[in-house]
Amino acid sequence: MNYKLTLAFDGKEYSGWQFQKNAPTVQGKLTEVANKFFSSSATVTGCSRTDSGVHAENYVCNVKTDREISPTGVVKGMNTFLPPDIVIKECEIVPDTFHARYDCKSKEYRYKILNTETRDPFLASRVLHFPQPLDVEKMKKDAESLVGKHDFVSFMATGSKITDTVRTIYKAEVEENDGIITFSVSADGFLYNMVRIIVGTLIDVNLNRTSLTIKEIIEKKDRTYAGFTAGPSGLYLYKAEY
Amino acid sequence: MNYKLTLAFDGKEYSGWQFQKNAPTVQGKLTEVANKFFSSSATVTGCSRTDSGVHAENYVCNVKTDREISPTGVVKGMNTFLPPDIVIKECEIVPDTFHARYDCKSKEYRYKILNTETRDPFLASRVLHFPQPLDVEKMKKDAESLVGKHDFVSFMATGSKITDTVRTIYKAEVEENDGIITFSVSADGFLYNMVRIIVGTLIDVNLNRTSLTIKEIIEKKDRTYAGFTAGPSGLYLYKAEY
Repeated sequence: MNYKLTLAFDGKEYSGWQFQKNAPTVQGKLTEVANKFFSSSATVTGCSRTDSGVHAENYVCNVKTDREISPTGVVKGMNTFLPPDIVIKECEIVPDTFHARYDCKSKEYRYKILNTETRDPFLASRVLHFPQPLDVEKMKKDAESLVGKHDFVSFMATGSKITDTVRTIYKAEVEENDGIITFSVSADGFLYNMVRIIVGTLIDVNLNRTSLTIKEIIEKKDRTYAGFTAGPSGLYLYKAEY
Repeated sequence: MNYKLTLAFDGKEYSGWQFQKNAPTVQGKLTEVANKFFSSSATVTGCSRTDSGVHAENYVCNVKTDREISPTGVVKGMNTFLPPDIVIKECEIVPDTFHARYDCKSKEYRYKILNTETRDPFLASRVLHFPQPLDVEKMKKDAESLVGKHDFVSFMATGSKITDTVRTIYKAEVEENDGIITFSVSADGFLYNMVRIIVGTLIDVNLNRTSLTIKEIIEKKDRTYAGFTAGPSGLYLYKAEY
């Protein structure tokens, strides 16, 4: 059987999604729980890697195992074994060929900036606390110029071995609520650290730390013209579409 | 100098407010930071003890030290030394006689119940997750009968040595938002575990686990008639009035 699971997790205590031998990871924890729950070896495939400390609202993975249990049973049963910082929200049975990564058509990330003078202890590992006031209206307009099919190599962490750096951004929106600025971005794919570098660049452009616009930084095709890499705590994998 | 500080803290990692020799406490952490920041011995007095895992939105304490620094300087300076789960929101200089506990006229606690089938990993240590559906309108009415001057001994943890168990509850309100039921209660004082036992009792009465009403349970003056002690994660010291 092949189960498609939708999860939410608080990434604070995990070294990202991808299994590692000597560090706690979400994939590692989920595989351990699936093996126990199905009393059978299970293979867990995620829609994407995530960095250490990054969160997810609706992360999709598929679990292959030879046991058949109802989707409701999988949700209830696995949730009793999972730790409080990981929860399965939905489960459906999908064809054997379904692959959470290869079949993913687009993903949406959200990045939260707490733009208040005082930090919030309840959001400590959940946002980027940035006390210097940001111009939200300007950020909205700057974000718009990210939309479209572009070579986003300026926003890729150096050291990445990817050579095809063209991606299509479908949506890049900014909104502010109760001092939290949320940047939402969906695309057919993302380069390594792309969202975090875009956020750092939006902040740098917002504060006139660079004379270039977002459009000009894209055109430079050079990482050194983009901004800082915003920390992982503010980043959420929000959705994966199939 | 005597400084009145208003703090917020996430209590997850602390064994409550009150200093303990071999456990991390909020008072312990604050004293350590105050000593370092003022480069002088500081005495930190809180408005109330809190249990392990209990949070605070606006906890008041006073810090006595022989150094004089501006309130803005205290907020900024101490916050740079404090860990991410404790923050000073306000500081004011008060007369030497001000005592955070003795001068406190009333306190307000809030208790959050996540009343949804699925738990939320981002609220794991911040709410009581109670999946069985609760009747919010009934709970609102039940809470009303707590208001007034009563002997609340039915809602005091056994083993407490307090003998005067009469308290005045000024407000006891229930509201629901996005699946979170918040119970707000203010009083001139609270008995040990009083809010947590009241919440457990409101739940038990709501689900008809007892045939008694809140009013009848108060009148019994006997802990055994009240409900379970709801866990600490849902409890927040919301405000202290002077």
